[in-house]
Amino acid sequence: MTTESPIGIFDSGIGGLTVVKAVQAALPAERIIYFGDTARVPYGPKSQITIRKYAADDTAILMRYQPKVIIVACNTVSALALDVVEKSCGKIPVIGVLKAGAKLAVQVSKNNRIGVIGTQATVCSNAYACAINQLNADIEVISQACPLFVPLAEEGFINHPATRLIAEQYLAGFRKQEIDTLVLGCTHYPILRQVIEETIGSKIRIIDSAEAVALRTRELLLESGLLNPSGHVSVPHLLVSDLPQKFSMLYQLFMGSELPDVELVEV
Amino acid sequence: MTTESPIGIFDSGIGGLTVVKAVQAALPAERIIYFGDTARVPYGPKSQITIRKYAADDTAILMRYQPKVIIVACNTVSALALDVVEKSCGKIPVIGVLKAGAKLAVQVSKNNRIGVIGTQATVCSNAYACAINQLNADIEVISQACPLFVPLAEEGFINHPATRLIAEQYLAGFRKQEIDTLVLGCTHYPILRQVIEETIGSKIRIIDSAEAVALRTRELLLESGLLNPSGHVSVPHLLVSDLPQKFSMLYQLFMGSELPDVELVEV
Repeated sequence: MTTESPIGIFDSGIGGLTVVKAVQAALPAERIIYFGDTARVPYGPKSQITIRKYAADDTAILMRYQPKVIIVACNTVSALALDVVEKSCGKIPVIGVLKAGAKLAVQVSKNNRIGVIGTQATVCSNAYACAINQLNADIEVISQACPLFVPLAEEGFINHPATRLIAEQYLAGFRKQEIDTLVLGCTHYPILRQVIEETIGSKIRIIDSAEAVALRTRELLLESGLLNPSGHVSVPHLLVSDLPQKFSMLYQLFMGSELPDVELVEV
Repeated sequence: MTTESPIGIFDSGIGGLTVVKAVQAALPAERIIYFGDTARVPYGPKSQITIRKYAADDTAILMRYQPKVIIVACNTVSALALDVVEKSCGKIPVIGVLKAGAKLAVQVSKNNRIGVIGTQATVCSNAYACAINQLNADIEVISQACPLFVPLAEEGFINHPATRLIAEQYLAGFRKQEIDTLVLGCTHYPILRQVIEETIGSKIRIIDSAEAVALRTRELLLESGLLNPSGHVSVPHLLVSDLPQKFSMLYQLFMGSELPDVELVEV
């Protein structure tokens, strides 16, 4: 493990590319290896046993590249199987998108009322509320599952009136709850950020977990002396377990650039 | 293989339960073994190589029960991997939901203009158009992928205004095309049948592939002398590769009855 070792990032599918983009922006000199488990996406609706098995598999794939840090970009794995990742990678530090998002939300909230949106599994696990209350037990956390946001984002229905109706249905309750901070607890949700912002109103501060995890990674590499002092900007090394038909379109939607070479790995 | 052998049915997930329900209605004296690959659902967006591998796995699981017929309730597998199923099960006859739906649509259409809706993979494979044109080369087939229909059905947004807006967006084109028949080329879509019907208008006849496959199964068992003469109505034997949190709610949505015992199998 040296300053030149890569940063390993994994997610259940393509959503974690929002984390890749945020890490690239915060740490342009670092090499990034990304594994998206596109053959088994989505993890959200699956059982905890299955999610924990997949988390071990995903970690093993990244470990082949001897990363200096592993970022769990998947909120579902961060919520239900972060300990599996930690056990599977020995002394390599692990950063979960969930704890990073929770920490930033706690720093930002002034009225101690934080909203969290995510998949059914993330919300049911109550992991965001636990992480937030470990940092500050006085904070009230109000959670809402938004299962249609991922398919709407992937279908590119960014500004569609149906997306607005569905956002209104999912988010209207937050207005009465008087939250001042809303955590996007799913890596897909930044794609729908504008609709979400317009639905909840401009007074509520949105926390993008992808940005939060990038900041935390920068801190950790600085603290441990592992920041790459002389790297160059490079395209991420992409590993996927399947190459879905819409992959190229989705990559462009998430990264805003053309799809580079992709390596297929078996899970 | 005897008259008392079960009917094996598999699907990528829970959608094939609409086929189970239709087969139960058409053949109440038959035992049904259903495998839903809930750990790896959805197959739709995955690559052909992955779908073909999964099709072999799914067939092997049903073969343990020595079925007298295997019904492929998954449109994606019917479109891209029916030959894999046929090779994997020796002399057991195989019925694909796709060919059954195509055949019924050809029988019903009077103006030789048929619409087909399905997942991205089913539509891109062009398999419905091929199956229809093999039966009648003069028929014009107009296809439309509706990727949001599955998540909308699973979220229970059966009568939601957002579902109507999305149906309008997907289906409006059919009005100009002057089709007289529309095939529901995905086992989830019968759940949204009312919205689909109201959107396309009452002049277009809807073909539910689940009903079509049940009729074809009845024919085949009669022809081969394998109809069970003395069976009793029984609950289907359910096998799944994962038990998602919403399984019980989804079972009720699809079957209209309480979830019976479920057996977990590894894939």
